[in-house]
Amino acid sequence: VIHKALISPRSIAVIGASENTAKPGGKVVINLLEGGFKGNIYAVNHKKAIIPGTIHIYGVHQLPEVDLAILAIPADQCIHQIEKLCEKGTRAFIVFSAGFGEAGPLGRERENKLRTILERYNANLLGPNCIGVINEFYKGVFTSPVPEFHPTGCELISSSGATAVFILEAAHNTGLKFSNIYSIGNAAHTGAEELLEYMDLEYEHGKSPGIKLLYLEDIRNPAKFLKHARSLACKGCRIAAIKSGYSEAGSRAASSHTGALATSDLLIRALFRKAGIVYCQGREDLISVACVWQTKPLKGNRLAIITHAGGSAVMITDMLTSRGMMVPPIDEEKGRHLLPHLHPGSAVNNPIDFLATGTADQLGRIIDFCEALENIDGMVVVFGSPGLFNVEDAYNVLHQKMLRCSKPIYPVLPSVVNAGQETMDFIARGHVHFPYEVSLGKALAMSHIDNRNACTETESIALNHAAIRAIIYESPDGWMSPDNSFRLLEAAGLKAASFVVCKSADALPAATENLKFPLAAKWHSTGHKSDFGGVHLNISTQSELVIAFNQIMEIPDCDAILIQEMHRGEELYCGAKKYPGYGHLILCGPGGIYVEILGDIAFGLAPVSETEARQMIRSLKTYPIIRGFRHKQGVNEDAYVEAIVRIAALTGIAPEIAELDINPFIANRDSVTVVDVRIRVER
Amino acid sequence: VIHKALISPRSIAVIGASENTAKPGGKVVINLLEGGFKGNIYAVNHKKAIIPGTIHIYGVHQLPEVDLAILAIPADQCIHQIEKLCEKGTRAFIVFSAGFGEAGPLGRERENKLRTILERYNANLLGPNCIGVINEFYKGVFTSPVPEFHPTGCELISSSGATAVFILEAAHNTGLKFSNIYSIGNAAHTGAEELLEYMDLEYEHGKSPGIKLLYLEDIRNPAKFLKHARSLACKGCRIAAIKSGYSEAGSRAASSHTGALATSDLLIRALFRKAGIVYCQGREDLISVACVWQTKPLKGNRLAIITHAGGSAVMITDMLTSRGMMVPPIDEEKGRHLLPHLHPGSAVNNPIDFLATGTADQLGRIIDFCEALENIDGMVVVFGSPGLFNVEDAYNVLHQKMLRCSKPIYPVLPSVVNAGQETMDFIARGHVHFPYEVSLGKALAMSHIDNRNACTETESIALNHAAIRAIIYESPDGWMSPDNSFRLLEAAGLKAASFVVCKSADALPAATENLKFPLAAKWHSTGHKSDFGGVHLNISTQSELVIAFNQIMEIPDCDAILIQEMHRGEELYCGAKKYPGYGHLILCGPGGIYVEILGDIAFGLAPVSETEARQMIRSLKTYPIIRGFRHKQGVNEDAYVEAIVRIAALTGIAPEIAELDINPFIANRDSVTVVDVRIRVER
Repeated sequence: VIHKALISPRSIAVIGASENTAKPGGKVVINLLEGGFKGNIYAVNHKKAIIPGTIHIYGVHQLPEVDLAILAIPADQCIHQIEKLCEKGTRAFIVFSAGFGEAGPLGRERENKLRTILERYNANLLGPNCIGVINEFYKGVFTSPVPEFHPTGCELISSSGATAVFILEAAHNTGLKFSNIYSIGNAAHTGAEELLEYMDLEYEHGKSPGIKLLYLEDIRNPAKFLKHARSLACKGCRIAAIKSGYSEAGSRAASSHTGALATSDLLIRALFRKAGIVYCQGREDLISVACVWQTKPLKGNRLAIITHAGGSAVMITDMLTSRGMMVPPIDEEKGRHLLPHLHPGSAVNNPIDFLATGTADQLGRIIDFCEALENIDGMVVVFGSPGLFNVEDAYNVLHQKMLRCSKPIYPVLPSVVNAGQETMDFIARGHVHFPYEVSLGKALAMSHIDNRNACTETESIALNHAAIRAIIYESPDGWMSPDNSFRLLEAAGLKAASFVVCKSADALPAATENLKFPLAAKWHSTGHKSDFGGVHLNISTQSELVIAFNQIMEIPDCDAILIQEMHRGEELYCGAKKYPGYGHLILCGPGGIYVEILGDIAFGLAPVSETEARQMIRSLKTYPIIRGFRHKQGVNEDAYVEAIVRIAALTGIAPEIAELDINPFIANRDSVTVVDVRIRVER
Repeated sequence: VIHKALISPRSIAVIGASENTAKPGGKVVINLLEGGFKGNIYAVNHKKAIIPGTIHIYGVHQLPEVDLAILAIPADQCIHQIEKLCEKGTRAFIVFSAGFGEAGPLGRERENKLRTILERYNANLLGPNCIGVINEFYKGVFTSPVPEFHPTGCELISSSGATAVFILEAAHNTGLKFSNIYSIGNAAHTGAEELLEYMDLEYEHGKSPGIKLLYLEDIRNPAKFLKHARSLACKGCRIAAIKSGYSEAGSRAASSHTGALATSDLLIRALFRKAGIVYCQGREDLISVACVWQTKPLKGNRLAIITHAGGSAVMITDMLTSRGMMVPPIDEEKGRHLLPHLHPGSAVNNPIDFLATGTADQLGRIIDFCEALENIDGMVVVFGSPGLFNVEDAYNVLHQKMLRCSKPIYPVLPSVVNAGQETMDFIARGHVHFPYEVSLGKALAMSHIDNRNACTETESIALNHAAIRAIIYESPDGWMSPDNSFRLLEAAGLKAASFVVCKSADALPAATENLKFPLAAKWHSTGHKSDFGGVHLNISTQSELVIAFNQIMEIPDCDAILIQEMHRGEELYCGAKKYPGYGHLILCGPGGIYVEILGDIAFGLAPVSETEARQMIRSLKTYPIIRGFRHKQGVNEDAYVEAIVRIAALTGIAPEIAELDINPFIANRDSVTVVDVRIRVER
């Protein structure tokens, strides 16, 4: 739990305070003072450091009880000082110092000791290896810039202090507003999970900040992260995040940076999708998406592009429409009413181009026109200056219209040189602006996500719990035998092709009595059977079956044959893979050899709801094979959806499943039937 | 041909010159004067406009002979004035005015008239609807900013004047240098093609600018464009371009903007690839790529990431490695020699992280270290400031090292607020800088293209020219009959499955005497035969053949059956499609139903060399099917390469081919055999 002392301390001690503002212990005091902190600031330094506005203290032993201690001293001194402060009643700490978990075995040991002390005293810690906190109550950072506090501005959580600084710098001239900023550093005690939990529990609609931005190098508790991110998303919050270190080389970097471990990018994308978080690749994306959200909510994906510069309009239209957004044509009849108010040659078919000589008054008319159009959800206004005339009047109109219109307006003000001052004046009135049309287009498409999924509890599906647990109980670690694997799937409610396992040719006629030809005969093994001639298909008579049986039996180590009814249809795939902390990632796509080659795979974190499974299937490139196309019939999509939901639910009941691959299902109009499966158990 | 008068005029007349610098006719005069134009400037205006430094003239009739006339008067007056100027000997014009081709039928008529006059007098025109020219000799634009002329700076050609301005504004603080800037507007007479031709013909190695940036809404003469872009690429130039208006809605915008027509994005990408041009989506990309090129040449794809801010290093590493660049680990033994010079806890395994407290001296040592490493081709240096200390000394080191190192160094200076002034001082020394690490990563990957292809003439392949022309000669417009289509492919040297066409069941035995079972029987038609039951496969006896024959003959309109030997193997696809002006786009990929569904298609413009065909094939996601994978044999790749080369060559000999679809080839270890083809002829 996050203590009030960390958020709104009544008093702060800076351990290692300095008169030298080029040192963290000096700069943080300046920031606290300039940030108007209301309580006492104790400047702790064994030399006499005179900092007006603070109370000088020679050592921690002389301190009265303080709410929060900020440590700007070498790592090797931190533990002792924190222990002493804990004894004196301090329960909130910020440690700037590096030299902990990120710095080899010695540092890790140091970090563990620190954690032990904090746990013993039930104290909070932000850091170590962080730049601190900025919020309504205090500016506890040793860096600049320190953005002004806006109650509804973005909240920022960053694994990296420098990255937090660079985000704030890049956002500086965009008009993006901030509220609370948390640099978590190594997150020895307080991570993004705990901060999201705090934000979730404290959330008050209309009062709490609605936009969260995250830069993360590690997610240690994905379940907690997911729970609170989802909950915030359902309360109406918008979250955008960078999770860096997804590449092999990138994770080498991250691991030396904050000690993070490599995580598959796919897994992170699945986690973010489930949590309703927009996945960003860099600071540019993060800031652009946040700027989009800082305007009024965009209720659909249909945009009007209003411009006096054609090229920008063409480029943003290309970007928007290639990413699922729409720039719908405007009704000709309606357009005819607008045209007389514009210069001859203007275009009103969307993009609306009112030419280089277009006036502020015309801009106003066009915005009003679009505000009234039923097939438009938002407007992009591109207005720059060739350096000939002043754009102040146009930006005034834009300002007025942005206040009054119910639809969001996204201003692209590309004239960072010719209209630099006017642009600054414009954002000083509380707006964001976008210098690049294409970046805005991308951000609009990225940020326009549907969070209804995140807010729907996954309905539970009833599986035969007892039967599943019984099979798992009797399965040792490693690959499950094919017959047990099929039994497990049947217990989970999946339809598998009828089969028998047979060990001698003599027993064949009796064993296969109830199976219908054509049959398949397969080596009863968990390996890639077909690589060794262990699979015979399309067996249509008993005598063919005997021949196949005997041939397969010749494979060394082969002592049993699985004989299975054959089904006709398309090959589909479904798999599950366990990731500690994340649970199971469920995968689906076309089956057979195409799983590996095409990479046409959709994925989601278990549990998977019917809606999620359907979205997964429909996101496949090869979905037409499932839906049917031209004169070719599709397959039973509902059955495939159900199979995916059941497999995801199975991994919930049997978390011992480390890997599960159904390849293929045979799918046709009637059903989806498992014909081959491999399951690996790991406890 | 571009006249010298347009490039380096001895005298300039501004028609519609004005004292009002908020008007194009006023601002251009100021720009000419401030740009230090050496010749006479005639300010033509029927009112007495006193502009110091210019010679006032009441009307064109009073002008002496001038080299270049710049028109800043309404569109409807331009034609008359240009005609008068032509009579007086002027051969170069720049027309700022809008109201021509982009402005409906009247404007188009006006533009045609203009073109007629220019052609009659063999005069040059830039525009109309443009902002003019900036070069070494004069600054003939009515906009700002006017970048300083650098002989080796980028050349910029832009369809859109405003976009040119916005590009210059966005480049303003990056350190990117410019030489010649051409705004072509509607390109009524001089387009990007003519300017590239001019640059190509005038190119002098080491003297001429090496980087070309293009913003295009239309490519009217793709062949000419390709010829000169390729030629420039072979001379060592680097070209990056945006071709906007690729989406349906985007082209609606472009068409109302400069009258451009929609062009498939695929086609543009194929054209750019063949020309060695880097395809950019927006101004951000264009500028970042140009900034990368403005540093020393990067000779490989292996980068060292040097940073004092871990997060940035992780993010750029992710971006680089996910796009084909490498951040190779650094030899541990070598790293051990560097470590003692860095702060404890620094990482030297690449990224090289020398911590937030890293010094300028350490930065210098690390750069020298990387300069000496064999497995590193270039360095990214991330250096910002948390606002604690001055970064001037670090930027000084960076400056020195960038001058001295043989490897390129890409500086990411993210502290646009904390180190804004130092960053400006740094670029004032002639460097570029990158504010965003992820954008740099993307630009490095985009810009690192291999232009050797563009410089190799496509070797010609000998096809049976006479036979091909004979078949085309006898084929009317429309779909070719299957037997003619097969004959055409055979004339082009492709291997097709043996077949006969048969009209009666009685003739079957004799007709199929030389064919080997199994056979396929197909309705001899150009439609989707299988949709109507018009295809029977795996026929293994004469009696089965007769049954199949009679069944297919029952299809209404069916009067002949094609009987063909069957082949076993993988289905592959190859197609060609004619685009007027561009020639033929050649496509290849997996065949059968997958062509449509997977979209796993590679493409190139004809003619296609063996190298290009191989690159196309290897860029396919499904290439493992061709190469072979696991225990599955691949197919004869060389034969597929040859088939693609031959089809491309065929379209050169038979340009009447509008569409050609071979779907499928049957490919196996031995050969690649055509089993179905459709060809449409259009004259």
